[in-house]
Amino acid sequence: MARTKRLGVLTGGGDCPGLNALIRAVVKRGTHEFGYEFVGIENGYEGLMVPDGAWPLTLEHTRGILPKGGTILGTSNKANPFLWAEKEDGRWVERDRSDVAVRRYHELGLDGLICIGGDGTLSIAHRLAAKGVNVVGCPKTIDNDLTGTDQTFGFDTARAICTEAVDRLHTTAESHQRVMVLEVMGRYAGFLALHSGLAGGADVILIPEIPYRVEPIVERLHRRHVRKRSFSIIVVSEGARPVGGELSIVERAEDVPGRGVVRLGGAGKVAADMIAKHIDAEVRVTVLGHLQRGGGPTAADRLLATRFGCKVLDLVAEGLWDHMVGLRGSEVVPVPLSQTTKERKVDPNGELVRFARSLGICFGDA
Amino acid sequence: MARTKRLGVLTGGGDCPGLNALIRAVVKRGTHEFGYEFVGIENGYEGLMVPDGAWPLTLEHTRGILPKGGTILGTSNKANPFLWAEKEDGRWVERDRSDVAVRRYHELGLDGLICIGGDGTLSIAHRLAAKGVNVVGCPKTIDNDLTGTDQTFGFDTARAICTEAVDRLHTTAESHQRVMVLEVMGRYAGFLALHSGLAGGADVILIPEIPYRVEPIVERLHRRHVRKRSFSIIVVSEGARPVGGELSIVERAEDVPGRGVVRLGGAGKVAADMIAKHIDAEVRVTVLGHLQRGGGPTAADRLLATRFGCKVLDLVAEGLWDHMVGLRGSEVVPVPLSQTTKERKVDPNGELVRFARSLGICFGDA
Amino acid sequence: MARTKRLGVLTGGGDCPGLNALIRAVVKRGTHEFGYEFVGIENGYEGLMVPDGAWPLTLEHTRGILPKGGTILGTSNKANPFLWAEKEDGRWVERDRSDVAVRRYHELGLDGLICIGGDGTLSIAHRLAAKGVNVVGCPKTIDNDLTGTDQTFGFDTARAICTEAVDRLHTTAESHQRVMVLEVMGRYAGFLALHSGLAGGADVILIPEIPYRVEPIVERLHRRHVRKRSFSIIVVSEGARPVGGELSIVERAEDVPGRGVVRLGGAGKVAADMIAKHIDAEVRVTVLGHLQRGGGPTAADRLLATRFGCKVLDLVAEGLWDHMVGLRGSEVVPVPLSQTTKERKVDPNGELVRFARSLGICFGDA
Amino acid sequence: MARTKRLGVLTGGGDCPGLNALIRAVVKRGTHEFGYEFVGIENGYEGLMVPDGAWPLTLEHTRGILPKGGTILGTSNKANPFLWAEKEDGRWVERDRSDVAVRRYHELGLDGLICIGGDGTLSIAHRLAAKGVNVVGCPKTIDNDLTGTDQTFGFDTARAICTEAVDRLHTTAESHQRVMVLEVMGRYAGFLALHSGLAGGADVILIPEIPYRVEPIVERLHRRHVRKRSFSIIVVSEGARPVGGELSIVERAEDVPGRGVVRLGGAGKVAADMIAKHIDAEVRVTVLGHLQRGGGPTAADRLLATRFGCKVLDLVAEGLWDHMVGLRGSEVVPVPLSQTTKERKVDPNGELVRFARSLGICFGDA
Repeated sequence: MARTKRLGVLTGGGDCPGLNALIRAVVKRGTHEFGYEFVGIENGYEGLMVPDGAWPLTLEHTRGILPKGGTILGTSNKANPFLWAEKEDGRWVERDRSDVAVRRYHELGLDGLICIGGDGTLSIAHRLAAKGVNVVGCPKTIDNDLTGTDQTFGFDTARAICTEAVDRLHTTAESHQRVMVLEVMGRYAGFLALHSGLAGGADVILIPEIPYRVEPIVERLHRRHVRKRSFSIIVVSEGARPVGGELSIVERAEDVPGRGVVRLGGAGKVAADMIAKHIDAEVRVTVLGHLQRGGGPTAADRLLATRFGCKVLDLVAEGLWDHMVGLRGSEVVPVPLSQTTKERKVDPNGELVRFARSLGICFGDA
Repeated sequence: MARTKRLGVLTGGGDCPGLNALIRAVVKRGTHEFGYEFVGIENGYEGLMVPDGAWPLTLEHTRGILPKGGTILGTSNKANPFLWAEKEDGRWVERDRSDVAVRRYHELGLDGLICIGGDGTLSIAHRLAAKGVNVVGCPKTIDNDLTGTDQTFGFDTARAICTEAVDRLHTTAESHQRVMVLEVMGRYAGFLALHSGLAGGADVILIPEIPYRVEPIVERLHRRHVRKRSFSIIVVSEGARPVGGELSIVERAEDVPGRGVVRLGGAGKVAADMIAKHIDAEVRVTVLGHLQRGGGPTAADRLLATRFGCKVLDLVAEGLWDHMVGLRGSEVVPVPLSQTTKERKVDPNGELVRFARSLGICFGDA
Repeated sequence: MARTKRLGVLTGGGDCPGLNALIRAVVKRGTHEFGYEFVGIENGYEGLMVPDGAWPLTLEHTRGILPKGGTILGTSNKANPFLWAEKEDGRWVERDRSDVAVRRYHELGLDGLICIGGDGTLSIAHRLAAKGVNVVGCPKTIDNDLTGTDQTFGFDTARAICTEAVDRLHTTAESHQRVMVLEVMGRYAGFLALHSGLAGGADVILIPEIPYRVEPIVERLHRRHVRKRSFSIIVVSEGARPVGGELSIVERAEDVPGRGVVRLGGAGKVAADMIAKHIDAEVRVTVLGHLQRGGGPTAADRLLATRFGCKVLDLVAEGLWDHMVGLRGSEVVPVPLSQTTKERKVDPNGELVRFARSLGICFGDA
Repeated sequence: MARTKRLGVLTGGGDCPGLNALIRAVVKRGTHEFGYEFVGIENGYEGLMVPDGAWPLTLEHTRGILPKGGTILGTSNKANPFLWAEKEDGRWVERDRSDVAVRRYHELGLDGLICIGGDGTLSIAHRLAAKGVNVVGCPKTIDNDLTGTDQTFGFDTARAICTEAVDRLHTTAESHQRVMVLEVMGRYAGFLALHSGLAGGADVILIPEIPYRVEPIVERLHRRHVRKRSFSIIVVSEGARPVGGELSIVERAEDVPGRGVVRLGGAGKVAADMIAKHIDAEVRVTVLGHLQRGGGPTAADRLLATRFGCKVLDLVAEGLWDHMVGLRGSEVVPVPLSQTTKERKVDPNGELVRFARSLGICFGDA
C-alpha cells in the first residue's frame, strides 16, 4: 500500500493578510480530499536550517484562523539557505548552506514543499527545485508587484486600510484647510497609492513609475485654493521620487553580511518638504507603515487565498513542481516559477492612470 | 460654434454602494475632460415622467459623495415608462407612456441618457433606445447576477457585510453550541452566499443553483458533533429551496397593477425548520435584509464604480448608444444592451463550488 | 504551608462581547498577583451538574482571547441547578438538584466560584451562596438593564453595532424615500434603542418605558414629508408596545418544563404594520437579532470587562462572598448580590429622553 | 415683542470626532425648542477677526453631519485675539486685538457665543467673558486631559482607533517575533496610551506620568522570550520620557511670533532606540499621528457630544455665562470656565494603573 504523502509548508517574507486562510485551505483540502500529511516549517526557510524548526501541522491548528492576520507558521524576511549567515572567527559571514535545507527536506520525509511568499521566497524555491526538491509556490505580496499573477491576496486588505486612512485624513484636511500627505507602501510599484488615492478621492498621487516635479503639484493646489477648496490630500508611494532625484530609500548596512535591509526613507516627507516651500498652508505627513499589513484579511482576500491554497494541491497531485499558482483573469492557473519576478508595475499610460487624470488627479508630471 | 453637449443621468432599481462614486466620476470626467453639462433625473425613470423631476447636476453636487452609500439622484424600483401606473375611474391601471419619457428627454435638450441600474433599468433603457433615445448603460446589481460583466460594484461591499455577519455569528454559535442560519440576498444566483460562506468559514451553503435535501445537511452537522464541534454556520441565499420544493418567495399582489413585488419569503426559516426537526441543538435564523446594501462602498467597489463612470463617457463620446459598460477580465469594455440579462449563475460544477466541497462544505445535495 | 487557593469560573446566559476579556483578566491577575489556580466550568451551571464539565483553566487558555467575542467557557441560558430538567417516565420534569452543584463544588476542591452572567445567573449564584458556596459575581447584560451597576460590558459594543445599522439604513431610506424600521434588543429596557437612535439620528424611537400611539408617529412622518424629507428611520426596542397593547413577545411552550423561552415577537413588525396603514411611503423592517451580540468587543467594553475581572479578585481576596462587582460613577465597587435585579429602566423624564425630544425625536406619546 | 436671540458658534483647536454632532445638537435644539438664531464663526476665533468670517448657521447645514468627523465651521489652533499676528514693517508681530473680536461680536448682533474647544479656546473664552462677551464653553480634547469634566468626546473614538492599531500590530509582531512600538497622542497625559494599551493587550505602556528606565522594560521583554513569547507590543504616549530625560518634543520657532508650534518629537523612536540596544529582536516604530483624530465619531462620542450640545443651551437660557458644560459621573453639569485647565492626568497609583500592573504590564519604573 502506498505511503501517505507528506508535504512541508512554509511562509516567507513580510506577513500578509490571507496567509492563514491559505494555510487552512491547504491543510483542510489536503487532509479531507487527498489524505496528505503536513509538516509546518517555522519562520520561512529558517525552519529548514535549524533543529526543531518543523512540527506536524494538522486540522486542529487551522481552527479559527481563517479571519486572522499574520501566519501561524511564523515568517522571516532574512533566512536564505543560499546566503546563510554564520559566525566565523567572531564575524558574520554568509555561506551557501542550501545542502542543509535539502538534507533536512529528505530527513523530514517530505514529498513536496509548499513555499508561500514573495519574490525572494519564490526565487529561493526555484533554486531549491534545481537541487531536486519538489517545490510548489504561492505568490504573496501586498504591493501587488509580482508578475505571473493578476493579483495577490493581501493587496485588497492593504488597499482598504489605505483608503480608510485617506478618508480619515479628509476630515482633518478639510477642517484645518491643510495639505495632508499619506505615505503608503510600494517601493517599486505604485498600485497601492494609485488605487487608494482613486478610491479615497486624493488630489495628487505620486508613484515610482511617474517621477514628479513640484511645480505641477503646487499649481494643482493653487487651483483648488482659488476654487475655495483650500485643502488637499496627497498619496505617495514609499518609492516615489522627484525627477532626477534619488530613490528616497536608504540601504542600511548591518553587521550581518548580506542582511542589509532597505528601510522606509521618507518619500512622503521629501515630497511634503518640497511642496511646503511653495505654499502658504500647513503640510502634514502620515506614514502608514506596519498598519498596512496587520489585522484580518478582507472577504476578497480570504477568498483569493483560499483559492490559491486549494489550487496548489492540484499542482502537487499532478507533480507539477517548480510552478506556482497565479490568478489569470478569473481563473487560478499554474505558472512556472521561472516566470515570476518583482517587475509588475503601474502602466503610466494605462486605463487607470488615464481615468485618474481625467478626474483631475495630478501625478506631478505635467 | 457647437452647443455644449447635455447628458441626463438616472439611477434605477435598489440602491447599491458605489452609485454615488459612479455619478461623481461621470460628472467630474465629463466636466473636466469633455466639457459636458449634466441633468440629474430623480428617482429613476420617474424623473422623466413627472414635472420637476430633473435639475442641473454639477460638480458641486459631487463633493464628498465618493465614500457615501445610496444615490444622490434618488432611485425607484417601480417607475417604468412602458408600464406607467395611472388612476382611472378610481382604479390603478398600467399604460405604455414611454412617449412621455421620450418627449421629456427632448424637452430637456438631452443629447444622451446615462442609465445606471440592473436588469429592469437596463431593459427599459434598451427599449427607449429603440424609440430613438441615445442611451448608454452602467450595470448595477448587488447579487452579481447580470450577464455581460464579470462583476458589478456593490457586490464586494455586500460580500464584506455578509462575511462580517458570518464572523459575528461564529462567536455566538461557538459559545452556545448552536446552529446559526444566515439568510443573505440572492434570489436567482447564489454568489453572495457562496462567497461569504467560503470567506466566513461556513459549514453549509444553500444556493438557488443547487436544490438541497435535509438529510446530507443533518449528516454533516452530526459529523461535526461527533468531532466535538457541536456548532455550525449555515449560509442560505434567499432563493435557495429544497429539492422539489417551491421557491420560497411570495408574489404579493398589490392594488397597483403590475407593481406586484416579490418579497423575501424566508428561505432561511424554511431551511432552519427542516433542520431543527432532525437535530438536538437550537437553531436560530438571522436575516440580513437591507443591511446588505446600506453604508459606504468598499475601496474595491469605489474603484470599479469610478472606472464604469469614466468609461461610459467613452461610449458617449463615440456615439456607441444602446451599449453599456462591463468588466471583462481586467478591462472595462462596451457591451450591447441587448446582451444583458439576469441570468448569470453560480456554476455548480465550477472551481469555487468544487473547492468549497473539498474543504468540507456541504451544499445539501450529497 | 497554605494550600494554593482554587477558584471556579463560569459564564451563564446569552453570550456577550467582553466575556473573554473578563476571563483573561481574572486568570492573569489571579495567577500573577495572587498565585490562585483556576477551574473552568463549562456551559454555565451545566458544568457543575454533569461529569467532565470542568477543566484546569490556565494562562495558556487566555492567550489571544482579549479581542474575541463569545466565551471560551461556553455558556447556557437554560441550565439551572434549582430547576434541573430530568427525564422521568419518558417526560421532562424539573427538580431542585442544587445539592449536586454544591457537592460538585466541593469535589472540585474549590475555594470560591466566580459567576459571570445576568439576572438569572446572578440570582442562582445568590441562592448557592445561601447553601454555603463562596460565590462572587460579575454582571453581564447587553441590554444594560441590571441594577447595581451603572453600565455593563457588552452594551457599548451592541450600541455601536445598532448605531452602524442605523447609519446603513439611512442611505437606503434616503435613496428610496422609505420609512425604515430597525428592531433592536431590549425586552424590558429601551437603552439600546434610545442610545443608538440618538447616535444614529433616528426620527422616531419606541421603547418599553413609553407605550406609543400611532397618531403622533404618523404626524411626525408627515411633517418631515412637508419639509421634503420624505424618509424616516424608526428604532424600536423588541419590548416596545402600543398603548393598551399586549407586549408583543410570545411565550413559547416547550416540552421541557420550565424551559419555556421568550422569543422575539416582532415589535418592529407590529409598529411598521400600524404605521403603514396611515402613510403613502413604503415601510421596511430590519431585525438585528443575534448580530448585536456577536463579534469582538469595543475598546471601552474590553476595558470595563478587564476592570470587572481584576476587581472581582479583590472581593475573593477579602472574602466578600455573595457580592458582585459594579460600576458606580467612575469606580468599580462591591455590590451585594441581593441588590441586583433586572429592573434598571430608561427614565422617561430623564435628561436623555428630554434632550432627544428637544432634537425633534418622537417617542409616540404626544 | 422680544427680538429673537442670536448665538454665535465657533470651534477651535485641533479637530476632533464629535464636533459636528455637537454643532447639530446646538442648532437643532436651539431652533426647535428655543427659537434661537445661529451664526457660524469660521475657523475658530479667526472668524471674529476677519471680514466675511461669519454666516447664518441653519438646520439645513446640520443635515447628515451627525456621523461625520471634522467640523463644518472649520477650526484653527492658532487664531488668538489676544495675540493676533500682524505684519508690521515686513515682520510679524503679535498684538492684543481682542477689542476687534468684541466689536465684531456686537456688530453681528450676538446675544451669546458658544466656544467649543480645548484648553486654549476655553481660556480665550474666559478672557472674552471678562470683557463683557456672553460666552459659554464646551470642552473638547482627544487626550482627555481637561479638568472640569470626567470625559470629553473624541477620546472614545481615538481610543478605539489606537486599540485597533494595537490589534493590527499584534499579527505582525507575532508572525515576525518582533517588538512593535506604537506612539499615540498624549503630550501631558497618558490616558490614550494606558487605555488602548490595556484594551489591546500591550506588554509595556510608557506614559508622561511615569518616567521610565530601559532596564525594567528589557527585563520584561526577556521574560517573555524565555516563555517563548518572543514578540511584544509597546504603547508610548508622545509625551513619555526616560527618567531624567528631556521631554522628547521640540518647540519649533516659526517666523510668525507666538505661533511657535509644538511638534511630535518621537517619544516612540526614543524608546525604541534605547530598547534596541539591549535586545536581539527587531524593533519597529509606528506613529499613529493624524489618523487618531480623523474619521467619524463612535456612537458613545456622538452621544456625549449631543448631550454637551443640548446642555449648553440650558446655560444660555439661564444666562450662566463664563461657564462650560462638563460630565460629572453620569450627569452633564455647568462648570465655571475658570476651573478648566489642561492638568488632568493619569493617577500613577490609581486603580487602572494598579490593575494594569497586576496583569503583568510594565510601565518602565520597576
